[in-house]
Amino acid sequence: LISKSQIKSITALGQKKYRQTAGLFVAEGPKVIAELIDSGLKLHSVYSISSLKIASEKLELISASELKKISFLKTPNEALAVFEIPSEEEQINPKLTLVLDSVRDPGNLGTIIRMCDWFGVEKVICSTDTVDCYNPKVVQATMGSIARVAVVYTNILEILKDTSLPIYGAFMEGTNVYSKTLPEDAFLVMGNEANGVSSAIESLISEKISIPQFGKSHNTESLNVATATAILLSEFKRII
Amino acid sequence: LISKSQIKSITALGQKKYRQTAGLFVAEGPKVIAELIDSGLKLHSVYSISSLKIASEKLELISASELKKISFLKTPNEALAVFEIPSEEEQINPKLTLVLDSVRDPGNLGTIIRMCDWFGVEKVICSTDTVDCYNPKVVQATMGSIARVAVVYTNILEILKDTSLPIYGAFMEGTNVYSKTLPEDAFLVMGNEANGVSSAIESLISEKISIPQFGKSHNTESLNVATATAILLSEFKRII
Repeated sequence: LISKSQIKSITALGQKKYRQTAGLFVAEGPKVIAELIDSGLKLHSVYSISSLKIASEKLELISASELKKISFLKTPNEALAVFEIPSEEEQINPKLTLVLDSVRDPGNLGTIIRMCDWFGVEKVICSTDTVDCYNPKVVQATMGSIARVAVVYTNILEILKDTSLPIYGAFMEGTNVYSKTLPEDAFLVMGNEANGVSSAIESLISEKISIPQFGKSHNTESLNVATATAILLSEFKRII
Repeated sequence: LISKSQIKSITALGQKKYRQTAGLFVAEGPKVIAELIDSGLKLHSVYSISSLKIASEKLELISASELKKISFLKTPNEALAVFEIPSEEEQINPKLTLVLDSVRDPGNLGTIIRMCDWFGVEKVICSTDTVDCYNPKVVQATMGSIARVAVVYTNILEILKDTSLPIYGAFMEGTNVYSKTLPEDAFLVMGNEANGVSSAIESLISEKISIPQFGKSHNTESLNVATATAILLSEFKRII
């Protein structure tokens, strides 16, 4: 059985301020939960309608209707766990660092973190107005890779001012990325879904790059930011 | 004012069988609606809380609470339009044809149609169990490009049996796509989110390709199907 105060404290974790005060976040579904436990994240509590798929002393069995009360999903997926937000990692000096300038959609951020894990991008630096990576929808979309990619929220302007590495940025009017030889050590800046890279950051970009449009249409929306990030990370990482 | 029977017939368009009977689908938001009108799709009816952003004789002004009743979005976006589903296009013989084998997530299909428009892929052939492209969530994610990409639902096995073109397919154990010289004329098959390409289709694949994993982790989920499609289309289209 799950108490009213437990329900209240779990559902409060849908909001960033409560996540930050409590130092906790929610992940759902046996597969994602198992992956986060395996990755060494500290489990705070875990609730499931079955004891079959999650091995933990902390497991509390609950009913499907109780799960519905605490879940952030339209269709709850068997189990919900609360994990401790890891403390900021020691300094990582990755080769390629992804910088997100005001990415707002949780699904986009989650998809981007998942592809960073795939491509071995160890660090993502986000502007403070980028959607919180411990937002339940982001955690869901990362499919567990949030435990393996360091996501840092900070003043990205200061970071980019201080670096001697080349700073690449995605712009509609940038040069064709396929014609470029890209370095191993660099920053790659991706902008907001509607407005792209902000003008303050734009002034610090050393190379504006673009994915050329092959379609005939001229009123096509730009590529979705997660799609564009996938293609650019692939260009940085591919063997030439 | 919008009548109860209008509300009923619009909300019914959330279901595939009603879309097929009526030959109609829903699109929301002034930007997407304007793009679909521009693309030459036939407008059946359009409802908006303001007359500012949509120029059409068919425009009916409604209240925000009326819009809420007919909208498929959590946060309705000013306007909702009903369009006629275009009749199947005459034979297009595109260079690169994308084939989707049981892609189920509406957001994934929408994102894929949007990137096809960008990359000039004119035709997407879907297995009959792929999510319907006129599903409201798919239409939303395409951002209007559904009017410019021909999406066909058919027995993909028959199509692939009949072609003399090379058939590429995305597989975890395929050869490194970056090491391949890819042809202009080909089929590219992408599989289901959880299970990949089905075994019946697998037997028809002439070249299994894969996006290599650069991260250290071995328990990473595969790339999301929309992310993988973006990278593979980029590889087919990029200048070498």
